[in-house]
Amino acid sequence: MAFYEARGEAGLAALAKTIDYLRAEFPDILTICDAKRADIGSTNQGYVEAIFDRLGFDAVTLNPYLGREALEPFLARADKGCILLCRTSNPGAGELQDLMVDGKPLWQIVAERVRDHWNTRGNCMLVAGATYPGELRQIRAIAGDMPLLVPGIGAQGGDVEQTARAGQTPDGRGMIINSSRGIIFAADPAASARSLRDTINQYRR
Amino acid sequence: MAFYEARGEAGLAALAKTIDYLRAEFPDILTICDAKRADIGSTNQGYVEAIFDRLGFDAVTLNPYLGREALEPFLARADKGCILLCRTSNPGAGELQDLMVDGKPLWQIVAERVRDHWNTRGNCMLVAGATYPGELRQIRAIAGDMPLLVPGIGAQGGDVEQTARAGQTPDGRGMIINSSRGIIFAADPAASARSLRDTINQYRR
Repeated sequence: MAFYEARGEAGLAALAKTIDYLRAEFPDILTICDAKRADIGSTNQGYVEAIFDRLGFDAVTLNPYLGREALEPFLARADKGCILLCRTSNPGAGELQDLMVDGKPLWQIVAERVRDHWNTRGNCMLVAGATYPGELRQIRAIAGDMPLLVPGIGAQGGDVEQTARAGQTPDGRGMIINSSRGIIFAADPAASARSLRDTINQYRR
Repeated sequence: MAFYEARGEAGLAALAKTIDYLRAEFPDILTICDAKRADIGSTNQGYVEAIFDRLGFDAVTLNPYLGREALEPFLARADKGCILLCRTSNPGAGELQDLMVDGKPLWQIVAERVRDHWNTRGNCMLVAGATYPGELRQIRAIAGDMPLLVPGIGAQGGDVEQTARAGQTPDGRGMIINSSRGIIFAADPAASARSLRDTINQYRR
């Protein structure tokens, strides 16, 4: 077994233990499997069982390229969150996502389709990168009060104030702003997390 | 450990053992990790190490939605194959992939971009589903002699003759036509694989 552990099993066991710890000690914290999954329906059904039922995550990130029909096994789980990549945070995100379709960028079509056709169980969210605050503001306008997952703060360079102002709902809610490397690799991770939380709250309505 | 094995590690160990077996017994067979990966660059670098270096796969399937820049860690590996989802085999594939951009469907834009900008190391392939032979024919015309990975035969209903005629190069090559459930779950898997091979060869130029 040791040989195979060196090729990934140890990581999966660590993930399972981390989730168990969070569920036991912090049951109110939403757990998101940022796996960016998308496959044909039968394979997605396997991912649903692994991510939601075996590991026990509350939500998963999903890639929209295969369309709604393929993602139905995820979307059908009204008890779980489906977070669709819309405008991602990476530097070259616009290569496909900014292509114009009927006068609108592709990311806007994705946001509208999720709002109008994919979110029939009210369990969808959208990914809108903090590195593109202009697009984030437009996605908020399209999405109504749908929650947004906003990566790109910290190591990727997104600005907290611009992000918080652009993405919140009129009542100052509706965003999960995540920082991964900026907290995990900080000298004092807990202090770094608290500082980011306080900075975000400073710009909420 | 046993508890965590029940949540996925056993599957990863089985995958590693299968790959080791194939590499030892059938070193000439191309191994493809059909994982449909796409994330930001730093996470993709982790996938590159896991899939190519630790597990030892020869190729991986990739989702194009995040753009070329994000996929660069995969594309930079000239010794490995990068197989980009272009027109997938699932029933609702067209929802985004058929959206018209400058008079062309999105899947055509993806095929052209891979051919002209992503395949600088000559290690790219495209996924073109057997369930859409019309699009497969057009993708062959765009891709030149680039190899195509063609899923959708067997359980998904794709027709072998139409697929082979539509996707091959002028010299009768250039396709990996895969059947997974149609062979794995056959009463006699080896006979089923040989039969599919012979049927495909019957329609090669």
